[in-house]
Amino acid sequence: MALCLQRRASFQALRRAARLLSPPARHAARLLSPPARHAALLLRLVSGVSYHALSRLLGGLGFSPYVNRVEMALKLKGVEYEPIAEDVKNKSPLLLQHNPVHKKVPVLIHNGKGIAESLIIVEYIDQVWQEGPPILPKDPYQRAMTRFWAKFIDEKCIIATWKACCSTGEEQEKSKEESMEALKFLEDEIKGKKFFGGENIGFVDIAANFIGYWLPIISEVKGVQLITEEKFPNLWRWMNDYCNDNFVKGILPSKDALVERFKSK
Amino acid sequence: MALCLQRRASFQALRRAARLLSPPARHAARLLSPPARHAALLLRLVSGVSYHALSRLLGGLGFSPYVNRVEMALKLKGVEYEPIAEDVKNKSPLLLQHNPVHKKVPVLIHNGKGIAESLIIVEYIDQVWQEGPPILPKDPYQRAMTRFWAKFIDEKCIIATWKACCSTGEEQEKSKEESMEALKFLEDEIKGKKFFGGENIGFVDIAANFIGYWLPIISEVKGVQLITEEKFPNLWRWMNDYCNDNFVKGILPSKDALVERFKSK
Repeated sequence: MALCLQRRASFQALRRAARLLSPPARHAARLLSPPARHAALLLRLVSGVSYHALSRLLGGLGFSPYVNRVEMALKLKGVEYEPIAEDVKNKSPLLLQHNPVHKKVPVLIHNGKGIAESLIIVEYIDQVWQEGPPILPKDPYQRAMTRFWAKFIDEKCIIATWKACCSTGEEQEKSKEESMEALKFLEDEIKGKKFFGGENIGFVDIAANFIGYWLPIISEVKGVQLITEEKFPNLWRWMNDYCNDNFVKGILPSKDALVERFKSK
Repeated sequence: MALCLQRRASFQALRRAARLLSPPARHAARLLSPPARHAALLLRLVSGVSYHALSRLLGGLGFSPYVNRVEMALKLKGVEYEPIAEDVKNKSPLLLQHNPVHKKVPVLIHNGKGIAESLIIVEYIDQVWQEGPPILPKDPYQRAMTRFWAKFIDEKCIIATWKACCSTGEEQEKSKEESMEALKFLEDEIKGKKFFGGENIGFVDIAANFIGYWLPIISEVKGVQLITEEKFPNLWRWMNDYCNDNFVKGILPSKDALVERFKSK
């Protein structure tokens, strides 16, 4: 059993190492027989490719809209990474080491260094992997506005809409009002555009994943109507385009799993 | 009287226009007789230089640590701008036009477009006026960490320390605890460095202007000790270096004016 676990660990390390190879090298490696592949990977490992060059995403196996933002950015850029599960009730030494301040996921570990805070990680990814599609616009004014709306979503939309669904009494009523007020600004901002990022998914669309996918599910589970087609026709249309976008669909967690999760909250 | 006001307005428009000239052109303009200068400036005005190329800072004549961040960034880059007073009790149409979401200062109007949120404006300034000293580091990891600490100061330090000084009872005690916890992280972060930005004032130092200057004054006025040399020796040393830095000193509002302001709060 111990030997079996050891072999499995060794195989996992090799799989991780395989991700460090360039695509042609990876393709060539697949053509080798398993033992030869093992040997080739070992050779690659000992020949100087650092394990730390691999990106690891702490929290990458859970249901968090914040982690999901980072997953979106990594996948948009075509970055291979290792998702690492994190137990919020029993935080790992890796999480405490790399995010000692907030002790929260997501944390992206790249080149052995940890980066925390989802939107900061997304900006980091956009800067490091510049060859992929741009996430933030280059123009300074557009860039500033993009940051403005992402911050607005974080500060004015997510907590208010969450509380509008999940709190009770006076707090719920107050949060509903705050949500309506904040969502009206988003409604105006998305008017006339396919995505917040224009023709393609951008920084604000990534920041707004909670509004686009999580929120309608939570609203449904909790029986609280917030974004309706009648009240927010543009935001409604964006939510549909967003959730039906082939790229986005492949990254969002399953609706059934989220329904189960929020039924118990 | 009306003619006098009209002439004054015209002269002010010309002075603003003068700021749009390149330094050598400005120097040359000074050598002309006043009427010739007037004519040269008018010529420049009608020859295509837009009034909107001038930077205007809404809130630039008040006492706000958030506005002060933007002033620091503009002055660090050597950008000439027009400060515009803003009455928080009677918000101007210009403020409501350029920051309809939050209706708050600072707002930087550049090329006729408004940018809100102090740290977003500082990033904008750093990108637009690249020829000046860098405010954020270029390295992606250092850049991410810089954003992390600036966000930390905004979210965990400013409100907690303000409440620790200005609230009462249970809220004050809770805020004191939160402040101590947050400030310990800043204490560790500044250890071994002259400024958060290294040898020079950077993004985090600009973000932390409230901690460096406003907070000790408010603490003194309210009789609440938060940052002492004994508890936070590194932060204490940074505060002294920061407030005695020749560049910073020239931008901070006078201590007497702040004392008066906070005595009445």
